[in-house]
Amino acid sequence: MSKINPRVRMIQNSVQANLLQRCNHIREELQQGVKKPYKEVIDICWGDAHSGGTKPLTFVRQVIAVCIYPELLQETTIAPDVKERARRLLRECPGGSVGSYAAAKGIPFVQDGVCEFISKRDGGVPSYPEDIFICSGSQNALMFVLKLLVHGKGLAQTGVLTPIPCYPTFVMGLTELGAAMVPYYLCEDDGWCLHVEELRRALATSRSHCNPRILYVINPGNPTGHVQSRESIEEVIRFAAEEELFIFADEVYQDMMYAEGSQFVSYKKVLFEMGPQYSNTVELASFHSVSKGIMGECGLRCGYVELVNLDPSVKQSVTSAFNTERNTAVIGQIALNIMVDPPKPGDPSYPTFSQEVKSIRDNLVHNVRQVQETVEALPGTSFQAGSGGIYAYLRLDLPQKALLQAKEEGTDPDLMYCSRLLEEEGVCLVVGKEHGQQEGTYHIRICIGTTSTRLKEVLRRLKSFHLRFLNEFS
Amino acid sequence: MSKINPRVRMIQNSVQANLLQRCNHIREELQQGVKKPYKEVIDICWGDAHSGGTKPLTFVRQVIAVCIYPELLQETTIAPDVKERARRLLRECPGGSVGSYAAAKGIPFVQDGVCEFISKRDGGVPSYPEDIFICSGSQNALMFVLKLLVHGKGLAQTGVLTPIPCYPTFVMGLTELGAAMVPYYLCEDDGWCLHVEELRRALATSRSHCNPRILYVINPGNPTGHVQSRESIEEVIRFAAEEELFIFADEVYQDMMYAEGSQFVSYKKVLFEMGPQYSNTVELASFHSVSKGIMGECGLRCGYVELVNLDPSVKQSVTSAFNTERNTAVIGQIALNIMVDPPKPGDPSYPTFSQEVKSIRDNLVHNVRQVQETVEALPGTSFQAGSGGIYAYLRLDLPQKALLQAKEEGTDPDLMYCSRLLEEEGVCLVVGKEHGQQEGTYHIRICIGTTSTRLKEVLRRLKSFHLRFLNEFS
Repeated sequence: MSKINPRVRMIQNSVQANLLQRCNHIREELQQGVKKPYKEVIDICWGDAHSGGTKPLTFVRQVIAVCIYPELLQETTIAPDVKERARRLLRECPGGSVGSYAAAKGIPFVQDGVCEFISKRDGGVPSYPEDIFICSGSQNALMFVLKLLVHGKGLAQTGVLTPIPCYPTFVMGLTELGAAMVPYYLCEDDGWCLHVEELRRALATSRSHCNPRILYVINPGNPTGHVQSRESIEEVIRFAAEEELFIFADEVYQDMMYAEGSQFVSYKKVLFEMGPQYSNTVELASFHSVSKGIMGECGLRCGYVELVNLDPSVKQSVTSAFNTERNTAVIGQIALNIMVDPPKPGDPSYPTFSQEVKSIRDNLVHNVRQVQETVEALPGTSFQAGSGGIYAYLRLDLPQKALLQAKEEGTDPDLMYCSRLLEEEGVCLVVGKEHGQQEGTYHIRICIGTTSTRLKEVLRRLKSFHLRFLNEFS
Repeated sequence: MSKINPRVRMIQNSVQANLLQRCNHIREELQQGVKKPYKEVIDICWGDAHSGGTKPLTFVRQVIAVCIYPELLQETTIAPDVKERARRLLRECPGGSVGSYAAAKGIPFVQDGVCEFISKRDGGVPSYPEDIFICSGSQNALMFVLKLLVHGKGLAQTGVLTPIPCYPTFVMGLTELGAAMVPYYLCEDDGWCLHVEELRRALATSRSHCNPRILYVINPGNPTGHVQSRESIEEVIRFAAEEELFIFADEVYQDMMYAEGSQFVSYKKVLFEMGPQYSNTVELASFHSVSKGIMGECGLRCGYVELVNLDPSVKQSVTSAFNTERNTAVIGQIALNIMVDPPKPGDPSYPTFSQEVKSIRDNLVHNVRQVQETVEALPGTSFQAGSGGIYAYLRLDLPQKALLQAKEEGTDPDLMYCSRLLEEEGVCLVVGKEHGQQEGTYHIRICIGTTSTRLKEVLRRLKSFHLRFLNEFS
């Protein structure tokens, strides 16, 4: 054991991993005919739309199928715009095959499409292909950019300001790379807002043990669902400029807005509208992915990062470092191309495409409402509904007796809650402890990027369990 | 610049990168109508079969197309075994979609198939799913396992015995992870054999500046094509056991054997046949991939590593560390499943499949012969033909005047040769310097995993250039 990298040794198997293991075990028991109060386990932990029953978008799948098996170009049942897109993409693959290597940073044609998308989204702010690095998912992109920046030990160790709550793989990544995690707390009572005073407090504290260099923000929030206002983003950028922090803006949920009237504004757009004092100086990495939006194509593995205001010499280093990666599947890049350039009104595939997109959006809105109604009717729970993303993050006000019981069992109260929920009702959620939380508060995360029928069943089981739980510990 | 990770800063943009940049530039010039002595640039650097004109295997592409777009299950033109395989694989995807996340280590069903394949290949030696880690290509797998083991500084810095010649991305990876590269030279005069005395020399030298822990072997060799005999592998294993080295066996070219009568034997098979003294103790990581074999599906990004004789506590750490990756595309895993479990005699798709495989093999044999014949007729070149893999590694005996000219130009003789070859004939090869070579020797690497027509044209241009080059510098 002493032979292995001590940083890797430090990565802890999370409590969630144990819960998932148990979840798989219960699934096997059910298959073997073991009697349980339920027939099926519902694992609704991850932001994984397709595993939650959401159907893939037809246009996406048709284009990929044709690229994979170009004989389908002969099929009369496949629409001309599908064929045209597939032909266009195959022209960009050496030898006309998705089986050949793409350039390390991604297919140039796909990079170009990403730039057009960003520029259009941001009201004309320019975006350059050389700044776009296509990766095997946004997590992979995050790790890549972190790897570039993280180094040093003791007071020189790179510190990363990290929101609490935050999804756990990011924190594991920091451990692995040897970064110091500098927690800043989002304000639950204020709808999970990011307050700059809290950033300032976290930064000041951190200087005694590391060198804070990176500020990580997730907008729309995971797990909170909070969407930052333009004013809030401006404040954060001003703070980053003052403190010379590199902003990592994780914006993978940008097209999953569900609150009426609320709108996603990117960090890049705000940065460029703040004038050259900021737009020429503040370093920004902005992340997006095909996994978490309308497409929900997690399994295809593709995302990108746009790097803004990097020193040219650093950019050269980045590009060289990227050559050891070369791991973004071409199929994922095709999905990315469609994400940034979907069918348009008038295209043969548009009616089906827009219908499918609408149904996914409507479903999301409906699901948030379902969660709200459940929580309102359930004592000891509360929910600060956000405006975007695919999670509902619920607070549990657990009875004193339950807290004592957990203490007696040597476990955490929210873990005890989730373990029992799994055993008794066959529902697997994410334990708040995984995300970090204010001392004495307890939470659970539910993925709402799922079908409404499935979510309804989850909420029915949760309600039934919760009332029993309260009863037992009252 | 000082802000970034010093290890990333150390990664050099290779000479090859500049050559490729020039290659792309020439391509653009041709498109713009600039007159050159050739109409097309042939880039034959990488082991990328499809970009070299090799056609994908029909069965692979059909199964993937059906998994991507399950409506194709209704197509009468698609064979029943294709549909059956697609149905089987879709059952393993949560929600029945390749767009859902797979388990971090890979789809369990695919892991099982890999184990059966290994066990069958190795004459019954057992293989366990928990030892199989499915990755986004073998390079990604290599980096992952290296990351686990590499740490320390000064005398404690992990040293990696690395063959010379070796492909450059591996060496870049070592730099990035902070490992010490410990070169050992393959013996060109002996057909690029690996001599244990040379390993011993390299190891002894290395102890003065690092802690050698890993022995990297590539079998069949890249770029050499040399295939190790069972005896040679036994010797290497005995050496690794004595010196407590972790063996990394890169065996991605294992199904590309072209010399009559020669056979690939895996490190794992030999290890297990050497008895418990070795099979219970020597740590081994064995790598394979869908990119480099008959399939040549580089763009799908999938490979695996089997980890043998890891300490159980280490294995737990490995599994946890793997959770920060999660980047293997499901489509690649489908290709892997087919690689390890291809159509069998009697299956509807078997005749086409076996015909396609045969044609790729015949082509490889034919290509090696083409290279041999060219070299025999060409003064100042020699070629130690190997038995497997997809490269021909040619030695150039360059005239004294050419060496002086290179010196005058401040460049390396083989780089000067390749640059001129590119400019004058539009052929891009890999410069020997990229792989490392004995002082005063010069080489070029040609990928022979390409169509014979294409290779013929490459050799024609190479011959014409080479004779002119000799003439100029004689």
